[in-house]
Amino acid sequence: MKINYPNGKSYTPSTNKGASIAPKIVSHSKRGMRLEDDLNDTNRYYLTHNIAVVHKKPTPIRIVNVRYPSRAQAVITEAYFSQASTTDYNGVYLGKHLDFEAKETTSTSSFPLKNFHEHQVKHMLQVQKQGGIAFVIIRFTSLNANYLLDISQLAFYWQRKLNNGRKSISLSELDSTGHVVNSGYHPRLDYLAIVKTVYNL
Amino acid sequence: MKINYPNGKSYTPSTNKGASIAPKIVSHSKRGMRLEDDLNDTNRYYLTHNIAVVHKKPTPIRIVNVRYPSRAQAVITEAYFSQASTTDYNGVYLGKHLDFEAKETTSTSSFPLKNFHEHQVKHMLQVQKQGGIAFVIIRFTSLNANYLLDISQLAFYWQRKLNNGRKSISLSELDSTGHVVNSGYHPRLDYLAIVKTVYNL
Repeated sequence: MKINYPNGKSYTPSTNKGASIAPKIVSHSKRGMRLEDDLNDTNRYYLTHNIAVVHKKPTPIRIVNVRYPSRAQAVITEAYFSQASTTDYNGVYLGKHLDFEAKETTSTSSFPLKNFHEHQVKHMLQVQKQGGIAFVIIRFTSLNANYLLDISQLAFYWQRKLNNGRKSISLSELDSTGHVVNSGYHPRLDYLAIVKTVYNL
Repeated sequence: MKINYPNGKSYTPSTNKGASIAPKIVSHSKRGMRLEDDLNDTNRYYLTHNIAVVHKKPTPIRIVNVRYPSRAQAVITEAYFSQASTTDYNGVYLGKHLDFEAKETTSTSSFPLKNFHEHQVKHMLQVQKQGGIAFVIIRFTSLNANYLLDISQLAFYWQRKLNNGRKSISLSELDSTGHVVNSGYHPRLDYLAIVKTVYNL
């Protein structure tokens, strides 16, 4: 589905993660293959090959107005993108509950922590506490590099920021505390191979 | 959030599960305490008491038109409720992945299987195959009775329907193959107590 704005730029609904990132929708639309597309494709691969069941949650929408032209159909006439209360992806793999968020940056030196929200970090810590596996997938689009970072590590960098430390994770920090996920063809981003190793499944 | 239609009936967004059930939105709005409210309240209880992390997924919306009055905000001006591809609830409890759907009926004798969709049954079977715990919670609103039914049992009744057998699960069948979940005060519907027993956690 493509939606064109009056300015001629196209809008892709699947990129919406919340009202606050709405401006990104336009700027990202021409980038080509995106992390979310790669993950959706990969999750479809996992599903059809009986490897895992992982789905992206629907984008949360705050509905303000609904018209009811017939008894059979409701038309939403005013709504806004709202902030997700959890992470975008979850599922089950080898009996384990998986919960993760995926973000990309155009930076070539560090990953800005503002890409995550406080409640997402908190949610992932809660999942971990209940015995689930929680992590983030970070992509440096310009470097074509992907990292998997466990929630414990992310929480460390998050706390450092809260303590007025640096507001990002440097590339060398990701090299030492994260795990490289290589891009491939089929599946495009085999992050479960890394999950299996990192979490000893 | 309450939205009033011109006919004076109120609309509660949280009841929308898909375009096909849109007419139910109105008819259910005056029923009072609903299963979904009870589950959301119960899941909040579990979360604050560190018992489990279970969330309801956002309602999937198909976006058709978006206006962009300013660079900071996108307004959805045309959208429709779409059918969920999975179940409404999932999460993690005692290290186990949980995945379930919850439905209510006003019938006093049987639960109509048309309340579930083929792809939901398929999804729950996939979750079970990956070592997750999948079930449905069924409420008979008129009887104030709730049942937890494992996906294996549901799949049995589903297959019977596909084989031109009965299109519903009788109350006595639920009594013998399901598990009663009692309503309470805090939490309102302690389904995890039943999950713990049924699945030997």
